Formats: sequence, C-alpha cells, structure tokens
Amino acid sequence: MAVFPDLVRDLTDDEEYPDIPLVTKRFAKVLQYNVPLGKKTRGLSTVASYKLIATPEDLTNENVRLAQILGWCVELLHSSFLINDDIMDSSETRRGSPCWYLVEGVGMQAINDALLIENGLYMLLKKYFFNHHCYVPAMELFHETVMKTTMGQTLDVLCMKNGKPAFETFTMNRYNSIVKYKTAFYSFQLPVALAMYLAGKYDAELHRQATTILLEMGHYFQVQDDFLDCFGDSSVMGKKGTDIQDGKCSWLAVLALQRASADQRKIFEQNYGKPNPESVAIIRGLYEDLGLPNTFAIYEEENYNLIRTHIQQTSQGLPHKLFFKFLDSFYRRDS
Amino acid sequence: MAVFPDLVRDLTDDEEYPDIPLVTKRFAKVLQYNVPLGKKTRGLSTVASYKLIATPEDLTNENVRLAQILGWCVELLHSSFLINDDIMDSSETRRGSPCWYLVEGVGMQAINDALLIENGLYMLLKKYFFNHHCYVPAMELFHETVMKTTMGQTLDVLCMKNGKPAFETFTMNRYNSIVKYKTAFYSFQLPVALAMYLAGKYDAELHRQATTILLEMGHYFQVQDDFLDCFGDSSVMGKKGTDIQDGKCSWLAVLALQRASADQRKIFEQNYGKPNPESVAIIRGLYEDLGLPNTFAIYEEENYNLIRTHIQQTSQGLPHKLFFKFLDSFYRRDS
Repeated sequence: MAVFPDLVRDLTDDEEYPDIPLVTKRFAKVLQYNVPLGKKTRGLSTVASYKLIATPEDLTNENVRLAQILGWCVELLHSSFLINDDIMDSSETRRGSPCWYLVEGVGMQAINDALLIENGLYMLLKKYFFNHHCYVPAMELFHETVMKTTMGQTLDVLCMKNGKPAFETFTMNRYNSIVKYKTAFYSFQLPVALAMYLAGKYDAELHRQATTILLEMGHYFQVQDDFLDCFGDSSVMGKKGTDIQDGKCSWLAVLALQRASADQRKIFEQNYGKPNPESVAIIRGLYEDLGLPNTFAIYEEENYNLIRTHIQQTSQGLPHKLFFKFLDSFYRRDS
Repeated sequence: MAVFPDLVRDLTDDEEYPDIPLVTKRFAKVLQYNVPLGKKTRGLSTVASYKLIATPEDLTNENVRLAQILGWCVELLHSSFLINDDIMDSSETRRGSPCWYLVEGVGMQAINDALLIENGLYMLLKKYFFNHHCYVPAMELFHETVMKTTMGQTLDVLCMKNGKPAFETFTMNRYNSIVKYKTAFYSFQLPVALAMYLAGKYDAELHRQATTILLEMGHYFQVQDDFLDCFGDSSVMGKKGTDIQDGKCSWLAVLALQRASADQRKIFEQNYGKPNPESVAIIRGLYEDLGLPNTFAIYEEENYNLIRTHIQQTSQGLPHKLFFKFLDSFYRRDS
C-alpha cells in the first residue's frame, strides 16, 4: 500500500487549485490523520482479491498498482464514514487517538472534512481510470455503496427514540438489516466487486453469488465486532467500546432481550444506554449471566463452518481461495 | 418543477430496498422537509438555461423533462450543503422553519440525511441518464463541484481560530476565493454547464467563457447575500442573518476592517463574532457609520453594468439572453 503518499499529492498538489494553498494543506492533514492508520482490511482485501482473480498475464505491476489505488479509494470511503459515525455516536477515540472531530480546532468542521475525503475518491478514479473499462461501473458501485451504507446508518439510528434506545425495535431481523446495509456491503462486497471489475469480470450471476457469501461474512464480522466492543481488549483494539453507553442495537443486546427473565429485562432497561461506568458493568455482568460469551463462541464456530460450506458449494467462476483467505483473516480474531 | 414527487418515489419506493421500509419512509421525509421549499433558483436556472441553449428541434417535452431532473439534482446537492452548513454554523432557521438538525428527534443524524440526499442525485442520474451522452460528464461535474464547494467551506472555516474570528485573515483576496469556491461554482456554473452538456455542447472554450461570466455573477450574488444577511428583511428572507454572530468573513466585515479607524477597529474586534444582540447592533451601527449600505448600492450598480458589458463582449456560441436573464433574476433583489 505504498502508493498512499502519491495519492495525497494528487489530491492536494492539484494544479486546479493554485489559489487556495491553505485548503490543500488542510486537506493533506485531514487525509494523514484519518486514512492511513487503521488496519486497512478493506483496502488490502481489494488488492488481495484482485491478485487471486486476475489471470496470470493480467497480473502486471501496472494492474496491481491500479488495484492498490482502488484499495485506497475504499479506505477513503471507510474513513469518511468513520469521521461522521464518530460525531453521530459521540465517540471519543478511534484507532488509539482522539476522534477527528475532537481534535483541537476541528469540531463540526469534521463533517466538511469527511466530504473532502469522500469526494477525493472520485477525483482519484477520474485521474487513474478515465480510460479504463471499469471507470463507470466502479463509480456507480461507489455511489450505490454509499447509499446503502447511509441507509444502514439511518436504520441504526432509528433504534433510538428521543435519545433513548427503543427496546421494542431490538429484534434479530432489525439487527440483520442494519449489519447488511451499514457494514457488509462496503466492507465485504465492495472490495471484491471492485477487484472483479478491474479483472474484467462483469457477469451478473457471478457477482450475485459472490455477494451472497460476502454478506454472510459481513454478518459474522459484525457479530464478532459487537462481541469485541464489550469483551475485547481495548488496548489492542485502539478504541473503547461504547455500544452499551450509546444504547446500540448490538448482537449482544438483541440476544440479551431474547433471553432475559422479566427481572433481568428490567435491569437491562434501567442500565442500557447510560453513560456511567456502573451501568456498563451491570450490563456486562448481565451478558455474562445470560451466557453470551459462550453463545458467541458457538456462533463463531458454527458460522465459520457454515460459510466454508457455502464457499465450497459455489461451483463457478471465482477461486474458493479468495473467500477462504478473506474469512480466515478475521476468524477468531481478538481485536 | 412538477416532477419532484416522481423523483421522491424513485428514490424511496425502490425495489432494491424492500427489506428496509422504515429507511425509505424516513428518506421521503428528509427529502420533503429539505428539498422543495426554497426558491429553487439553481434548479430553475438549469431548466431556463437549457431552453435557451437547445436548438428548437431538440426542445421536446422529453428533453425538457430531463433538464428538470438535472435541475432537481442541483437542488438535491444544494439541500445537502445547507443541512451541513447549518450544523457547522449553528444556524437556527432556514426557509422560515427550524434547521433540519434542530427538528425534534433529528440532531446529528442530519449529517447522514445530507449524505442520503447527496447520493440520491447519483441514483437519479443513473436512472434517467444511463444511456445519455451527458451521463458521465454530468457525474464528473457533480463530483468536481462538490469538491470545490467543500474546499470553499474549508477556507470559510479557516477564517476562525479557536472558535474566534481570525481578523488578520479577513482580506478581500480571501473573501473572493471563499465566494468563488463555496458558492459561485455550484450555484452559477453548475446549472449552466449541465444545461450545456444536455444540449450536447462540450466545447472547452465555450465552457471557459461561460464559467468566467458565471463566476463574476456568483461573486455579485454573494456580496448581495452578505449585505442582505445584515440589512435585509428577515421576514422576507425566511432566515435570520447570523454572519455577525458567527464571526463570518463577509463582504461587510472585510470592508469595515479596510476602512475602520484604530478606535473603530477596536470596537469591531470587541463585538464581532459575539452572540449577544447588543454586539450585533453595535456592529450594524458601525457598518452604517462607515457608509457600507451606500458602498453596496454603488458596488451593485457598477458590477451589474460591468457584468453586462462582459456578456456583450462574449462573442461566440451561447445566447447573451441566457446570461442577462440569469443576472436580472437577482439584480436589486431584497430577499
């Protein structure tokens, strides 16, 4: 992923904007703070997918570089979502540092910075793919993915009413839709679909099959993420979980409400979505009493095996290795 | 502009999202509240421009409808900027109603709603222009315009340091760049350039000439807007001006700093950017003492005539009437 400095230069050294050097300087700072410091899973899987999909004769340095640029475009999108999400969720830290909107002198201007980053990806697409067959399909895919992700975020926030969690909405169906729209499309389907376009694979049935498996993986990933938000090691993850304080419709919360006795439900409703550490500890204790860590361990094994079976049953077109590699990159992760 | 209900239906009745009816219902509400209630200047000028640019045989009902759809795309973009701007400026009212983020139950979720609206325009472009020659150029123009406008907003906010106006940055040069990037491109160049694309006019020199005049008009429009923010009738404008309270680098503030004596500058610095009504009244009084209403009247006449001269000197390609009509739509407006 060594092309990042070149892309920052493309976006901020632009000859089109010689009259506003202050802005391009700030844009560079926004990019440096927000884009390159995460795990880059989505960007890296774009490149890894391309390497597995492309025919050996297509696998030139130039094409790999194009895959890397697409990977960074995905990372730009991801960063712009995170900046906005942190504002909407009142989060405090991200990747071990203060959230961008909490950095001194930034504040609500972060909304604007997220827009700069998001639109930066279209500038890069135009610069590097203008004459490539995947130019228009990639642009459209980004548009559709932004729309779906934003719809998922809408659904997520609709689990709150007047600033409080609306527990009657915490169903497994609702949870599944949130995960599909808010996370699975952009984190799983987008990288692979981009790699397929770059490799010239446009067959609709092939894309449909890949999407089905990738959305299943996205679901598994998010359930894991919800579990780690509560039970993971925050020093490893670089962010403190805030799902409980924020009153999120998480996998743990949905299961807890399914299993709780009347008394336990009362305790849950009294403490979920409250900022004080005592309430958070009570909820975590309740999750343990309800056996959720064990349920998660079972879910993880069963789902992992189920997805592997689905991959093996996919008969045509894409190498199974593509999906197995992806899946194993987060199987049993602890951060 | 009667096609709006159809476009809302396109965006929210989508067969692609049968599993999230709550989201599409909310999207419809977001569109209804934010998009159709303004003056629609930008959308209407897209259509008016097309009617003046297209050859008579091209001026079919179908093409006019396409121009109307492009006009609504511009209005969608405009609305998404306004939603974000109101958050960043802590504004209270817009078009006579509370700003969207202040509506009960909305809050910071408004950031997400602005994204829904912005991306809605790309969904509409794909639906109606997929096979049209202007599809890709229009998409790219929207991307570039969002980038420029966002850069202008960045420059605007860079006039603040630690929440206070940085008066050393309030120069006419800075002001001119803010206006060009933040307003003139999307409000003036975008509608006409889209109309030109729809009419099949892609000549770069023609676009360059049009852009020059349209950016001059944008400048004049913004100076007027700054003047009306302070001296306009808020019951007519549907919004209360907050430039003084917000410490904005407005045309009036830049001129005041140019003209103020040492004592007046002190008064200005002590009161500009303060929320209390007394300070606002003191600044307004200072503007009057410095003769700014009169300076504006002179600027308005001179600029109007200058732009008319430039239009007349533009020799090729586009009808002068296009620009004259545009210009006269806001000459001497009082709201």
